[in-house]
Amino acid sequence: MRATFREQLDSLRGALVVMGSDVTSAMRWATESLLDGDIDPASKCINTAATVRQRREEVEETVVTLLVRQQPVASDLRLALASLHVAADFERMGALAEHVAKIMLMRHPVTAVPPEVAQVARQMADVAERLAWKVTGVLETGDATLAAQLDADDDEMDDLHRQMFEVLFGQWPHDVRAAVDAALLARFYERYADHAVNAAQQVVYLITGVSPANQD
Amino acid sequence: MRATFREQLDSLRGALVVMGSDVTSAMRWATESLLDGDIDPASKCINTAATVRQRREEVEETVVTLLVRQQPVASDLRLALASLHVAADFERMGALAEHVAKIMLMRHPVTAVPPEVAQVARQMADVAERLAWKVTGVLETGDATLAAQLDADDDEMDDLHRQMFEVLFGQWPHDVRAAVDAALLARFYERYADHAVNAAQQVVYLITGVSPANQD
Repeated sequence: MRATFREQLDSLRGALVVMGSDVTSAMRWATESLLDGDIDPASKCINTAATVRQRREEVEETVVTLLVRQQPVASDLRLALASLHVAADFERMGALAEHVAKIMLMRHPVTAVPPEVAQVARQMADVAERLAWKVTGVLETGDATLAAQLDADDDEMDDLHRQMFEVLFGQWPHDVRAAVDAALLARFYERYADHAVNAAQQVVYLITGVSPANQD
Repeated sequence: MRATFREQLDSLRGALVVMGSDVTSAMRWATESLLDGDIDPASKCINTAATVRQRREEVEETVVTLLVRQQPVASDLRLALASLHVAADFERMGALAEHVAKIMLMRHPVTAVPPEVAQVARQMADVAERLAWKVTGVLETGDATLAAQLDADDDEMDDLHRQMFEVLFGQWPHDVRAAVDAALLARFYERYADHAVNAAQQVVYLITGVSPANQD
């Protein structure tokens, strides 16, 4: 018996859950290295980002195979493209976690997060991880209600981003390099969050069929 | 007479040429604002980035329609996905041009590029624009030989990025904010270049059928 297109697309969701889980871990490891000064988690992050890139290619291949075999209608095709969008966002999230890890490694054994910015960096990391964890949860459980919380998390990230810049542009006691590192780190966490929010819209579309433009 | 899938895909290339041309202009305008202190080109850049976002959605819709009508084989499907990748890279390039414009506007009437970094910013902008212009040219003419030059341009961008950081981390006479602005601008130009190189690989695939992994 031939499985329907939607059933096969549903099994593709399993691959996306693995990617989401990987990029959540990748950012957690990058942050751990950054704040604790231990280089091992940074290496794990970089390896995981490479795995995630590979998985995105596999997801694309699976979608091609699926489309060739099943000759779907337009609405099903849009769902397949939504899966590709999610995989693309997850790949970028892995790359952003890798950027955080690389800033840590470049500055090691000096810390890239002096005490003045360590707390806000920790908070940004927490929000980033929470966002990735929630998107992955929505994918895994099919419960789209969790996605409704993402906008509030994203607002929190924007606030933290502003806080970081207030610290940097206030009485900054360190050198320019430390300020530039902190600004780039803030950008990486914020972009990671943006991609999680984008991915969530596509995930809600996959689950409910409501297009991103019509989601609240 | 029903046009073949590849002929229709070819006509989609026309839409991508327009996008490529738009993101080339968008970055040129952003740079013009940045270096000349005139806000009008920055506004044009921001409007153009919005148009490019819209065009990407149209390209996706066209691909869906095409796939539903033509039921392509796997190799043709991969070409359709390559078109979507190009559209996605162009959209990001438009957004990065917009980021440059917004830094200019946030700092106006103060310049975001003090004399110490104006020249390297100008050079980064030139390389960025050249890369975008070449990708668009390859799309338009179907002459993939132009794409072979992109790696050298990208290396030049990496060198300029390093030069920028040497200036910032040397005897920087301005405040932290100016350094952070310059670092972010450098990142935006570099990312724009990266996306142009990615797009070029997909464009070469569209034209020659040689996959990115097998391109020199």
